[in-house]
Amino acid sequence: MLSLLDRYKDINDIKKMSLNQKKQFAVEIRRFLIDKVSKTGGHLASNLGVVELTLSLFSAFDLNHDKLIWDVGHQAYVHKILTGRKDSFDTLRQFGGISGFPKRNESVYDFFETGHSSTSISAALGMARARDLEHKNYNVIAVIGDGALTGGMALEALNDVGYRKTKLIIVLNDNQMSIGKNVGGVSKYLNKIRIDPKYNKFKKEVENKLKKIPNIGEGMAKYLEKLKNGIKQMVVPGMFFEDMGIKYLGPIDGHNIKELTEVLNSAKKLNNPVLIHIITKKGKGYEFAEKNPGKFHGIGPFNCNSGELVKTSINTYSKTFGAEMSSLAEKDKRIVAITAAMRDGTGLKNFAERFPKRFFDVGIAEQHAVTLAAGMASSGLKPVFAVYSTFLQRAYDQLLHDVCMQNLPVVFAVDRSGIVGEDGETHQGIFDLSYLTQMPNMTIMSPKCIDELPYMLKWALKQNFPIAIRYPRGGDDILLKPLKNFNIGKWEYVSGKGKIALIAQGKMVQHAVLASQRLKERDIDIKIISACFAKPIDKTMLNQLIEERATIITIEDNVVRGGLGSYILEYVNTKDNKIKVVNLGFPDEFVQHGKVDILYKLYGLDARGIESAVLKTEALSHVF
Amino acid sequence: MLSLLDRYKDINDIKKMSLNQKKQFAVEIRRFLIDKVSKTGGHLASNLGVVELTLSLFSAFDLNHDKLIWDVGHQAYVHKILTGRKDSFDTLRQFGGISGFPKRNESVYDFFETGHSSTSISAALGMARARDLEHKNYNVIAVIGDGALTGGMALEALNDVGYRKTKLIIVLNDNQMSIGKNVGGVSKYLNKIRIDPKYNKFKKEVENKLKKIPNIGEGMAKYLEKLKNGIKQMVVPGMFFEDMGIKYLGPIDGHNIKELTEVLNSAKKLNNPVLIHIITKKGKGYEFAEKNPGKFHGIGPFNCNSGELVKTSINTYSKTFGAEMSSLAEKDKRIVAITAAMRDGTGLKNFAERFPKRFFDVGIAEQHAVTLAAGMASSGLKPVFAVYSTFLQRAYDQLLHDVCMQNLPVVFAVDRSGIVGEDGETHQGIFDLSYLTQMPNMTIMSPKCIDELPYMLKWALKQNFPIAIRYPRGGDDILLKPLKNFNIGKWEYVSGKGKIALIAQGKMVQHAVLASQRLKERDIDIKIISACFAKPIDKTMLNQLIEERATIITIEDNVVRGGLGSYILEYVNTKDNKIKVVNLGFPDEFVQHGKVDILYKLYGLDARGIESAVLKTEALSHVF
Repeated sequence: MLSLLDRYKDINDIKKMSLNQKKQFAVEIRRFLIDKVSKTGGHLASNLGVVELTLSLFSAFDLNHDKLIWDVGHQAYVHKILTGRKDSFDTLRQFGGISGFPKRNESVYDFFETGHSSTSISAALGMARARDLEHKNYNVIAVIGDGALTGGMALEALNDVGYRKTKLIIVLNDNQMSIGKNVGGVSKYLNKIRIDPKYNKFKKEVENKLKKIPNIGEGMAKYLEKLKNGIKQMVVPGMFFEDMGIKYLGPIDGHNIKELTEVLNSAKKLNNPVLIHIITKKGKGYEFAEKNPGKFHGIGPFNCNSGELVKTSINTYSKTFGAEMSSLAEKDKRIVAITAAMRDGTGLKNFAERFPKRFFDVGIAEQHAVTLAAGMASSGLKPVFAVYSTFLQRAYDQLLHDVCMQNLPVVFAVDRSGIVGEDGETHQGIFDLSYLTQMPNMTIMSPKCIDELPYMLKWALKQNFPIAIRYPRGGDDILLKPLKNFNIGKWEYVSGKGKIALIAQGKMVQHAVLASQRLKERDIDIKIISACFAKPIDKTMLNQLIEERATIITIEDNVVRGGLGSYILEYVNTKDNKIKVVNLGFPDEFVQHGKVDILYKLYGLDARGIESAVLKTEALSHVF
Repeated sequence: MLSLLDRYKDINDIKKMSLNQKKQFAVEIRRFLIDKVSKTGGHLASNLGVVELTLSLFSAFDLNHDKLIWDVGHQAYVHKILTGRKDSFDTLRQFGGISGFPKRNESVYDFFETGHSSTSISAALGMARARDLEHKNYNVIAVIGDGALTGGMALEALNDVGYRKTKLIIVLNDNQMSIGKNVGGVSKYLNKIRIDPKYNKFKKEVENKLKKIPNIGEGMAKYLEKLKNGIKQMVVPGMFFEDMGIKYLGPIDGHNIKELTEVLNSAKKLNNPVLIHIITKKGKGYEFAEKNPGKFHGIGPFNCNSGELVKTSINTYSKTFGAEMSSLAEKDKRIVAITAAMRDGTGLKNFAERFPKRFFDVGIAEQHAVTLAAGMASSGLKPVFAVYSTFLQRAYDQLLHDVCMQNLPVVFAVDRSGIVGEDGETHQGIFDLSYLTQMPNMTIMSPKCIDELPYMLKWALKQNFPIAIRYPRGGDDILLKPLKNFNIGKWEYVSGKGKIALIAQGKMVQHAVLASQRLKERDIDIKIISACFAKPIDKTMLNQLIEERATIITIEDNVVRGGLGSYILEYVNTKDNKIKVVNLGFPDEFVQHGKVDILYKLYGLDARGIESAVLKTEALSHVF
């Protein structure tokens, strides 16, 4: 007999199911998720946590009218399964396949694209206000995790939601986790509600008892009446939300479809904003993920039965960064590490365990992280903020206004720069060279290989100004000899000679070296320079190249617009005696998901692409 | 006899004053502030509001050890008066004079520079953590307004503060205002506390009464005991702060030096984070400012006796924008306006009054504002977010990730682009062309004169993609004929001919025209082009200039790094048949405060500076 999932056609089917069928359906969906993600890799634990929630949302609402927004978006797999993409799951996160995040071009049921955290309430409120102004009456629902709720913009949005009392349903999916364990006062507050279900019970009991007190005199009775009202107002969990103007319902078991559907249905009837606080378990229903939700948050292909990763882990920039941080911190007490909910991803797990007092996980709060670091640096510490390139975008203003303007010695370990691969366009780190080079006082470095990173970090921590060290996801393609000493703004000559100079940035040096090997077979020799500093650029070396009448090809895993190549071009252009400069990098577009290798190839930034660029330039230079 | 202010030498003097002397001192400081600011212009109302607070802080703390951070910084005038800058107040906000914001190079008592809102708690927490790790014992105090508290990063910081229980004193200066009247749920929450001083009283009364109830049986007694504890926990104003792990004290009269000093002294003794909620009146002690704190927030020179501005107001870009918004909104119901606490500054006052349901002031919350607009645009509205260039920096990620990635038709009215003048380096809008041109799908326009702005706005609202219209503070220098029709990416030929083409952006076209008039006297004719689109650039026109072998001089009131000139250069550089491109703009540094004219002159972006650049290029082109 076909399973429910096999027979499933469209969102109307869910409404026809009995409660028991839905429960069975949930089991099948979990099995499907574990099976598929074990092959493609992806976000597993968070999706296992929202199976019942998604089924309940699809039961209570009609997405042909209502709009549903998944904050951060990586937990929308069940939503995708239910909205016509079940059969595409083998292509999940693969080049040309379905994305791991909501995409409007994939489905009419993906109402708003998400990827970065904490955006959903703002977007949903915008939709709800549009609805009201256009006198329509659909529901708008935002589903947001307790981790995402600590992001500043989510709190900005809540502040606005309560103010105007727009009808809006916020589902707070509380699993006490973001990617790792949650931190912060908001979490503390939610926890208080969570562990105290007696709040509600207590309130009722007191009211009953109060009713029974006989003959206590009028004055006392008046006080007790006041008291009762006070309690009514006060002893409500989620009072903060209520005081802000948002109705609070909860906490509710997020794996109980019946209860969930009921509360969603009653929320529909309210004409004010409401926050439904549900408790779920990340990784629910898969033993290994329940035990280790962090590992199964975003995971590569794994063995379903053992829960073990298929690939043994390689040496990565993140790991090396983390190890060097611990080593340097051993010798210098002023070194502290900051992360925005990315302890493990940035390689700081060991540091956190060894130096708990010097490790600060601020939650999903990049803005605060940067200015916190600025405050620390202004008072004698040596803070290192380890952050993914794409998330550092959140703190553009804090970098400029709080760190660079005061020229404070904060070190930014900008991980996942360049192409990150399967997470796709919301997560590519291809803008940082543009936004960082435009900031006065900022120094930017990039190691050409993993082994160079520790020396760079060590050097950076000795300086007295802001430094960003950018490095990619994953590991190295080839072995290179690390540079061990740095002079500010001085680049490294790597190899080769001739009229053409490849100035490459970070790991792109490896691609350049591979290209030079291919070119050697054609008897073309090229000079390779590692732009270990993307800012300041090496004017002495550039002057020399100008003098030699060289042709420069710049290579960076960043958009060309405003990037390193553009910066070099700006400088060369100030000279009268100009030379040819060719800028390689990403064009003015968002880069989709897919394997890193495929994407570098697609954009001509792999060895073969660079070879072609050189050959084209060679041909042109004959024309000159 | 010399006044207290005349005799005042340094911060130790305050500790020696009696309470009555402090009160007299406050009167003198107010008089001084009104007198000085009436001549220089500046932030008046907020400074009048913190006179007693500043005196109390200086009484309770010793800034030779303790550290004090003023959020947003424009209310630090009293602090400046008390820390050696009294005699420099005639130079306030003037070129070369003292800044209107805390500056570390002005005084050792300016511990952290501020200008943008909501940064103080993060910075202070960083300092407090540095103190603890270095086993020192100074106090760190952050003073933050209730308006600034709605900014996401302040909430991110509060979330972190409560979590680790670091000793830190936060003074919440609650005047129910940011620049205009405050909005939002947090404000609602604070208001509830504010208007309900009975909270505390009520709690005490109930406790007393409960003690007196006789013989109610053991079961009931137990319940009442529970009740009492419940009340203790619950009926505390600021419970949300307490639940987050931050001790709450207040609300307290912020103009009562005695009470304030006492509570600050008791806060010193706590070893946990504490928030002191004080109530102040913006504009306190100056009738006109009390009545109209918005007008006296940031004000030009005015007559002390009448409270009237010295200069009659000119026509500005902001006013014209506001008027056109109202006019367009009349005809198209889908047009809505969003501001982040800048209703009046952005010219939207009239719109807000005429279309209250279509006007959204989200508080100091630029991130939320942008994604709210994205949500609205995704659901059929035509949102316009009017925002100062420098504050839009806060929403870099939301622009890129929420608007551009989905290519949503949001219009950004980017006011105060370029040099803003007296507010100085924290407020100059000289980065937006760099950070906006690097965003795929973003279109950027600039009117060359005020009269062009309405046509641009009208055009932008008809398009189906994101558009930023950037325009400067103030009004026009000369009269130009507005362009009324636009084709995407098509520039306007303005005047002149010859081998040199000035491609100018926005109001810089006016400077270019003035320069061309000077050049005509030397018999040099130049071509002037208005780059009404900074993105996309006009490739057809550039190709033609390349064909003509012209020399291009680009002019923008933005940093050269990554700006419009750089963008044009990148394009020209992709052509084999290159031509000379000279980029004029700001160098890689922060631009200090001073009159707009002085600063443009300083950086060679006034008519004379452009003339020089042309002459230099002319001379060079003879060499070629």
